[in-house]
Amino acid sequence: MEMTEKVPVAILGATGMVGQKFVELLIGHPWLEITFLGASERSSGKRYGDVVNWQMSTPLPREVANKIVKECQPSEGYKIAFSGLDSSVAGEIEHAFANAGIAIISNSKNHRMVPNVPLLIPEVNPDHLDLIKRQTYTNDGCIVTNPNCSVVGLAMALKPLSDMWTVKQVDVATMQALSGAGYPGVPSMEVIDNVIPYISDEENKVETEPKKILGALNNGSIDFLAMNIRAHCNRVSVIDGHTECVTVELEGNPTKDEIIESWRSYKSVPQELLLPSAPEHPIVYFDEDAYPQPRKHRNLGRGMTVSVGRLRQCTDGAWKFVVLSHNTVRGAAGGAILNAELLIKKGCI
Amino acid sequence: MEMTEKVPVAILGATGMVGQKFVELLIGHPWLEITFLGASERSSGKRYGDVVNWQMSTPLPREVANKIVKECQPSEGYKIAFSGLDSSVAGEIEHAFANAGIAIISNSKNHRMVPNVPLLIPEVNPDHLDLIKRQTYTNDGCIVTNPNCSVVGLAMALKPLSDMWTVKQVDVATMQALSGAGYPGVPSMEVIDNVIPYISDEENKVETEPKKILGALNNGSIDFLAMNIRAHCNRVSVIDGHTECVTVELEGNPTKDEIIESWRSYKSVPQELLLPSAPEHPIVYFDEDAYPQPRKHRNLGRGMTVSVGRLRQCTDGAWKFVVLSHNTVRGAAGGAILNAELLIKKGCI
Amino acid sequence: MEMTEKVPVAILGATGMVGQKFVELLIGHPWLEITFLGASERSSGKRYGDVVNWQMSTPLPREVANKIVKECQPSEGYKIAFSGLDSSVAGEIEHAFANAGIAIISNSKNHRMVPNVPLLIPEVNPDHLDLIKRQTYTNDGCIVTNPNCSVVGLAMALKPLSDMWTVKQVDVATMQALSGAGYPGVPSMEVIDNVIPYISDEENKVETEPKKILGALNNGSIDFLAMNIRAHCNRVSVIDGHTECVTVELEGNPTKDEIIESWRSYKSVPQELLLPSAPEHPIVYFDEDAYPQPRKHRNLGRGMTVSVGRLRQCTDGAWKFVVLSHNTVRGAAGGAILNAELLIKKGCI
Amino acid sequence: MEMTEKVPVAILGATGMVGQKFVELLIGHPWLEITFLGASERSSGKRYGDVVNWQMSTPLPREVANKIVKECQPSEGYKIAFSGLDSSVAGEIEHAFANAGIAIISNSKNHRMVPNVPLLIPEVNPDHLDLIKRQTYTNDGCIVTNPNCSVVGLAMALKPLSDMWTVKQVDVATMQALSGAGYPGVPSMEVIDNVIPYISDEENKVETEPKKILGALNNGSIDFLAMNIRAHCNRVSVIDGHTECVTVELEGNPTKDEIIESWRSYKSVPQELLLPSAPEHPIVYFDEDAYPQPRKHRNLGRGMTVSVGRLRQCTDGAWKFVVLSHNTVRGAAGGAILNAELLIKKGCI
Repeated sequence: MEMTEKVPVAILGATGMVGQKFVELLIGHPWLEITFLGASERSSGKRYGDVVNWQMSTPLPREVANKIVKECQPSEGYKIAFSGLDSSVAGEIEHAFANAGIAIISNSKNHRMVPNVPLLIPEVNPDHLDLIKRQTYTNDGCIVTNPNCSVVGLAMALKPLSDMWTVKQVDVATMQALSGAGYPGVPSMEVIDNVIPYISDEENKVETEPKKILGALNNGSIDFLAMNIRAHCNRVSVIDGHTECVTVELEGNPTKDEIIESWRSYKSVPQELLLPSAPEHPIVYFDEDAYPQPRKHRNLGRGMTVSVGRLRQCTDGAWKFVVLSHNTVRGAAGGAILNAELLIKKGCI
Repeated sequence: MEMTEKVPVAILGATGMVGQKFVELLIGHPWLEITFLGASERSSGKRYGDVVNWQMSTPLPREVANKIVKECQPSEGYKIAFSGLDSSVAGEIEHAFANAGIAIISNSKNHRMVPNVPLLIPEVNPDHLDLIKRQTYTNDGCIVTNPNCSVVGLAMALKPLSDMWTVKQVDVATMQALSGAGYPGVPSMEVIDNVIPYISDEENKVETEPKKILGALNNGSIDFLAMNIRAHCNRVSVIDGHTECVTVELEGNPTKDEIIESWRSYKSVPQELLLPSAPEHPIVYFDEDAYPQPRKHRNLGRGMTVSVGRLRQCTDGAWKFVVLSHNTVRGAAGGAILNAELLIKKGCI
Repeated sequence: MEMTEKVPVAILGATGMVGQKFVELLIGHPWLEITFLGASERSSGKRYGDVVNWQMSTPLPREVANKIVKECQPSEGYKIAFSGLDSSVAGEIEHAFANAGIAIISNSKNHRMVPNVPLLIPEVNPDHLDLIKRQTYTNDGCIVTNPNCSVVGLAMALKPLSDMWTVKQVDVATMQALSGAGYPGVPSMEVIDNVIPYISDEENKVETEPKKILGALNNGSIDFLAMNIRAHCNRVSVIDGHTECVTVELEGNPTKDEIIESWRSYKSVPQELLLPSAPEHPIVYFDEDAYPQPRKHRNLGRGMTVSVGRLRQCTDGAWKFVVLSHNTVRGAAGGAILNAELLIKKGCI
Repeated sequence: MEMTEKVPVAILGATGMVGQKFVELLIGHPWLEITFLGASERSSGKRYGDVVNWQMSTPLPREVANKIVKECQPSEGYKIAFSGLDSSVAGEIEHAFANAGIAIISNSKNHRMVPNVPLLIPEVNPDHLDLIKRQTYTNDGCIVTNPNCSVVGLAMALKPLSDMWTVKQVDVATMQALSGAGYPGVPSMEVIDNVIPYISDEENKVETEPKKILGALNNGSIDFLAMNIRAHCNRVSVIDGHTECVTVELEGNPTKDEIIESWRSYKSVPQELLLPSAPEHPIVYFDEDAYPQPRKHRNLGRGMTVSVGRLRQCTDGAWKFVVLSHNTVRGAAGGAILNAELLIKKGCI
């Protein structure tokens, strides 16, 4: 494909934390161009720079600051809309956009588990994109979702294992970053010198979404992977980057070297298609004892690489390791943009 | 027992973090009185106040500051010595003191797994104290140890479950406080906005010590409990208080209410004997979604109560919960002092 | 005075951060007893335990948790009401209570600078209490205020200097704790790995309140102290305890030892009257290079002692030092309770 | 100047924090190329990747990791050496290199206040570079220093003011980042939930270095600027970026707009010469109430832009503002590299 001119895109929920990350990542994107910033009625009609509480660490570019925010209603001028909407409103709005012939690339949880909606990680299950053919929206209208931010790193680390051996049981304990809670999110009084061992509605997602993601597309529907997942989700005093302690029971007797090699050699469709947001290495494995760590490794591959380390075997044969991924890039806006790139490259739009 | 006068005690490794906590907790203790402060040769002969880098949040009392630090060699004037020595030197020094007829109450790892050394939590396995009869030190010389700081909370939470049902499998992921690493310990650059998913030699302790603690005393030796433990140990940005996410597989089909009741009703020997450091409630269970938390609950029972919360059942029948305990009080100095109180009350000294 | 029975008191704004601290400090108070918990209409009629988001590090006692919260309207049964109300409503409500014959001990800013309202620190200006005679409320109704949390430490540190020499110029930069912003207060995303160099409406208070506090009562009104104050106020990643860097120009050529001695020897009316909340030492001076520090010293004197350190002279003759005080104890609820104790002891109630 | 090939450079103290930042910034530098990594005898002869405890957030490139570290003795192959040496050894080693005909670009404090050594900020006092003509080292051997990390931002913010009005008095309180203390630096126990109001030997530098930097070159020597500076230096829980609260007394009655315009319009020699490390805007002024902040603005201009905000006038006419600069980039390695670029462009090497 030759991109002769940029594809105009909309951002829904543009003033929220995920929306801001969409803006940051789309500035200078080689294929995509922001043409519409949608937010709540309260912000509508005002300059983006006047209504956004900009939390990114790069400055907000003037051209985006000057754009007028609009309500989240479908309009002309774009065929792709990224949704960082809150789940309380995402369901209906995303339907409306898809019904208007727009491809919704959603970060919200609402449609993730709907049978004919792809829960997509381009490196893991690009074939699941076929599910949109089962959707009945107008023209090119469709809904494609990316997983919960604490699921992406886990699913990507499990994929090479699942390809080569059988994953039976997964125990995971997360230590999740504050940016995942949005803004204002977690009060500072709650996390300085503290851990919060609870994130509302999170463990359920970690225990179910990977089964769909790693499932097999079979006659137009997904056969969930038959593995058992048990999750603990915690909030810790980290700005960006979810760290996860994982124990897996594998059938097939792999060696330590084989597992590490399965991660290090993993490449997939986004790397082959040279999608702009695809990292050269989807998965990096560290030999250092105390790696990966969120502050040091979350930005690998511009936030799109998943870091893995500390593989060791338990006396009962199970394997333990640590996974780290950037929750607002790979786990949210960056993952959604990679999804859009796949749709474009595959000619779905 | 009537305590007509206080029992003089020594502190070995008195300038370290655990040593300082021993000092803090023993000031004003109703039964015990500091008579000897032992440290390395470098500090020997100097005022304690001049060589200690005092990190406690209560001021160092003048009478202790003025005491002269001595080398860690046995001397007259006390029958009990608390050891907060580094494991690189604890082994030999503790032997020497025991050989001199002194009861060593040790926080060091060196002798914990020795068959005839009690690995003691007075609420859990007070009968294991009998093991000291199998020791061959002079007179009342003996070695009694308390567990690793990340083991205590776990073992105490498992005890009521183990009493009523069969614990088969334990998966635990810890989020451990910085004070557990001593001083200077973890550089600040490593933990601000970060997690370190590794603590040297820690997972091995978590996976083995509970089996001895929860084991049965049988003809003068311990039959380890036959359960499988898999541990991940992490360092997080918390000053005091280890938080642990635990998943257990129990045989016996308990209900949620039965498990909670087993924790809430748990009382043991220290409570019956009214030992001075014994908390009224060894285990507190919280109904709140997001409790326990280190900053809010580590000081319950003056740091000696273990907090538990978030009990919920997995689809496969296993139970998940969260445990919190104060790592330098219940998990180190406070636990050792409670051990000493038990020895005294039992007439072992 | 013999306290034969406890004085019943009300807490207005009982569910807020300052209100919670009032509750925590009044539990077990030897003279005072909570009889009324006032909050907004939304909480009225409900159990305190059900509506408060308890943030204190000691558990909420059951007897308080079971009290029914009421609206903030004057009622029978108490002659003293502590106000931790938000300034948006404190003005009117406090007037209403004073008009009903109740002594309002307020932590709110609304009436602080009113000429006949004492801005009271019992160690500094106990004579200012006479101002209430100029108030025209019914019976014993009156309003007494305590200063802004960042002013108390500064004013207390300046008092001995002002007694002995002339304070001409004060430059102060504060590093203030998060608890001062209430709850939820500062979002965690804003303070992890960050400093916020701004606190709304704070510098103005620091630059004016000390002039009234250190002013002289003269024929029933206060002559403000003629000193110039310039303030920078910052929010830093600390839970409790405001640290302040102070530079003062003094007339009178004191020596370093004289200044330190003026702090160390300072005692005042609360110490003489043995008020229950009075610390033995209102001001502690540290010789250590790097003291005072919030985590280590905020709780001195149960949070009522002001810590000072690092006195050194500039080449131009000015003096630099560091002040630390506990912002929610000495700087808010504890200070207000000490005010109430002074009123009671002085027979004003 | 046409750079036909890259200039080889040495890094002395290459394994320390400043040395690592030199490495990070020099990778991919358009003019400069690392050819020599010097460190202590202990590291000498080993791979850099094996001896460095890499703390940067970008990965260490393999080509640098494989370089063999050498002792800090002058050798052939480079004419420029960057020094991030500890001050305990920097004095002699830097002399030795300069005597060997090498231009030492030093970040160490040792020679900063020596009369014929430029204390250089290319945007502020590029003419001071002439001082090296007064140095008597062999051939092109010379020593050029950059200021203390907490001085750079202050000096740059004062420069436009000093150009247009007269700066009489400066009061500054710093809140400095942890990276400034090197590695391991500040123990985590000391800064979580804490502030350290002391940095050894720092206030003295802040009170003297700006007078030399802003001084006038006069017949080959510097006339120090006659201003009085009073400094408080504090360590806070921030990874990178020093924040400073500044109060200045200016003669000349500027308006607020004039001061802001003096900052915003400031450009200097590095911008004119298009030096590779020169930021487009040396100084950025923010209109937002609570800006600048370290986490949000330290990376502006790739860490080389100084951020200023919160300009407001005191009742006595003095001006208050906030300055932020990246302490290891603009305040250390980046500043030194900009110095080297100036030397090269000016033909000094």
